[in-house]
Amino acid sequence: MNSAERRPSRRAFLGAAAGLAAGCHAASDTPERKPAPVPPTGIHQAGIILPQQPQSQLLVVVADVSVAPGLLLAELGRRIRTLTAGTDDRLLGLPAGDLTVTVGIGPRLVQSRDPQLPGAKDLPPAAHETIAPSDRGGDLLLQLCASDPLVPPVAAAALLAQPGVRERWRQSAGRGPHLPVADGLTAPRNLLGFVDGIIGPHTPAEQQRDLWLTGPAPVAGGTIAVVRRMTLDVTRFAALPVAAQEAVFGRRRDTGIPLSGGVIADGPDLGAKTPDGRYLVPAGAHIRRAHANVVGAGLMLRRSYSMDTPAPGLLFMSFQNDLHTFTATLASMETADALLPFTTTTASGTFLILPGFDEQRPLGSTLFPA
Amino acid sequence: MNSAERRPSRRAFLGAAAGLAAGCHAASDTPERKPAPVPPTGIHQAGIILPQQPQSQLLVVVADVSVAPGLLLAELGRRIRTLTAGTDDRLLGLPAGDLTVTVGIGPRLVQSRDPQLPGAKDLPPAAHETIAPSDRGGDLLLQLCASDPLVPPVAAAALLAQPGVRERWRQSAGRGPHLPVADGLTAPRNLLGFVDGIIGPHTPAEQQRDLWLTGPAPVAGGTIAVVRRMTLDVTRFAALPVAAQEAVFGRRRDTGIPLSGGVIADGPDLGAKTPDGRYLVPAGAHIRRAHANVVGAGLMLRRSYSMDTPAPGLLFMSFQNDLHTFTATLASMETADALLPFTTTTASGTFLILPGFDEQRPLGSTLFPA
Repeated sequence: MNSAERRPSRRAFLGAAAGLAAGCHAASDTPERKPAPVPPTGIHQAGIILPQQPQSQLLVVVADVSVAPGLLLAELGRRIRTLTAGTDDRLLGLPAGDLTVTVGIGPRLVQSRDPQLPGAKDLPPAAHETIAPSDRGGDLLLQLCASDPLVPPVAAAALLAQPGVRERWRQSAGRGPHLPVADGLTAPRNLLGFVDGIIGPHTPAEQQRDLWLTGPAPVAGGTIAVVRRMTLDVTRFAALPVAAQEAVFGRRRDTGIPLSGGVIADGPDLGAKTPDGRYLVPAGAHIRRAHANVVGAGLMLRRSYSMDTPAPGLLFMSFQNDLHTFTATLASMETADALLPFTTTTASGTFLILPGFDEQRPLGSTLFPA
Repeated sequence: MNSAERRPSRRAFLGAAAGLAAGCHAASDTPERKPAPVPPTGIHQAGIILPQQPQSQLLVVVADVSVAPGLLLAELGRRIRTLTAGTDDRLLGLPAGDLTVTVGIGPRLVQSRDPQLPGAKDLPPAAHETIAPSDRGGDLLLQLCASDPLVPPVAAAALLAQPGVRERWRQSAGRGPHLPVADGLTAPRNLLGFVDGIIGPHTPAEQQRDLWLTGPAPVAGGTIAVVRRMTLDVTRFAALPVAAQEAVFGRRRDTGIPLSGGVIADGPDLGAKTPDGRYLVPAGAHIRRAHANVVGAGLMLRRSYSMDTPAPGLLFMSFQNDLHTFTATLASMETADALLPFTTTTASGTFLILPGFDEQRPLGSTLFPA
């Protein structure tokens, strides 16, 4: 089954919506769906724009590397191919299903190749951070996603069992039901009850402009990841009236629609005002402070998951072809974003997501040729 | 610019769909089974034998209590009723779905009521444990389960926001697809790829005999929980040949059938031998060492979940009406169980699961009357 076949048709969507209207009763005789495999090879790595709707389970592992990266990355790519093909007994007989593994390398390794390359620059410290030294930075990022929560940790064990790899921290996280946003596009809620992370580079043209690195050659097809583990003060947020909660995000809590109106997929109308002159989307609303037009930067693809251990929060993941997109957005948020005071970031890193790979072009070989 | 603005022809459709979805947060891109609510009240608390197939997501929180338990427990019961009824905005608009909350109290609180009561005795230390003082024992257990991973942490925040409650540790965990075992009975795999925890008190007669406390009166309808967070050495286990893995559990990895044959629901035939006199279920197989007939104790209801943060492992949960059932089983395992060396227990506690409650009989009122 390819992605076009998996994309719900308008009729299926309307049928589902009609079912929802009739008391939210979905079909009760739906057979359990077997998740479609996601090819690990190609121009780009899997787990960024494929599958189109992110799998429900995520495991992020950040590690340090004490060996030359070339052989290590090539071996990782080989294992990713056998694990996702279901031909690697290190998966202990579990069906790989829709497992994706996305590999990035940290600034130290990128610098060792060329300090001018994208990905060589580290994240600056930011406000609302309480990060132990072990949980900042790192040489290797593994983002593992699947529908079956057992698959990412077992696959991670298979990938990490290599000399010269020392784990720093890991975080598993999940997604609940997705809301339909637009044709083929859905969004989950976060632990504050809101849908967020909707706006992003979703068309091929936007992805070419803001998501994928197009050069220099060793990184073309890759992208830049930012990962931040942040706890959320659910208790303090839940104590606010719903209208105050909505002012924090700039969206309606129940529908996800911007406070300036329209439909959920609409960006906010940042100029819209009440008859008495107040902004419909408040000055400190997250949807305003993080808006590309306010920041003056490109779009970032957000692919975050909710976590509840060691504390309720968000495993924030963003992908963009310029780290400046992220740092400028965070700087804009730090001036006034009403959401930030409910967050404490406890782990953080940026990683160059390697270009796609296949049997002929091993993972990492454009940067570290054999 | 966003996708809806680029494709104005979809606006009416999207608006209608968003409007329809507004009344129901479980909207998804495909029709999904809407989980049936589980009544929180009755003779027993929910989350033990109901729902019959445990929900896919679990969050366990262990806390200490510095106030008189009576009012605290009654308030917990009230909040459990409003949260599961969907009438508590502290759930931030999330649909409660099949949320269950199961409440237990630790030995210190039971002793404060009557040192002779079931639940007053603590767990003795055991082998293969590396437990920080903060992660051993505790006054209050909340076991929250749901199909939606967002619901347990938000519900936990609502329940824990009370004076005199101090969290010690928490652990979220999940289950993958369940294998059918017998009529109405299913079992998940663990992170070592095996189905386990199948044998237990599944008939009403067995549950009356081995699961539920029938007296003394203040605890009748309750049970005794054991919770242990254990990491599993997935890498070392995965390096074994499949036959050696199967010898550790005493079951086939793919089907879950005991090595003595039969079907998955069968208990092992512990006397079955090969023609040359070797046991089909090896002497050290987990299925033998933990078998009630080998232990000489009652059946325990196991309700464990797999975790991958902070390390891959198992959040072991068992329910039994006599702590001896658990301690004798662990003692039997410690003599020879081949599984134990792959485990390290990092948190542990036992709790008296309070009898069921309702509006007339507040949670905990049989032990701590107002």
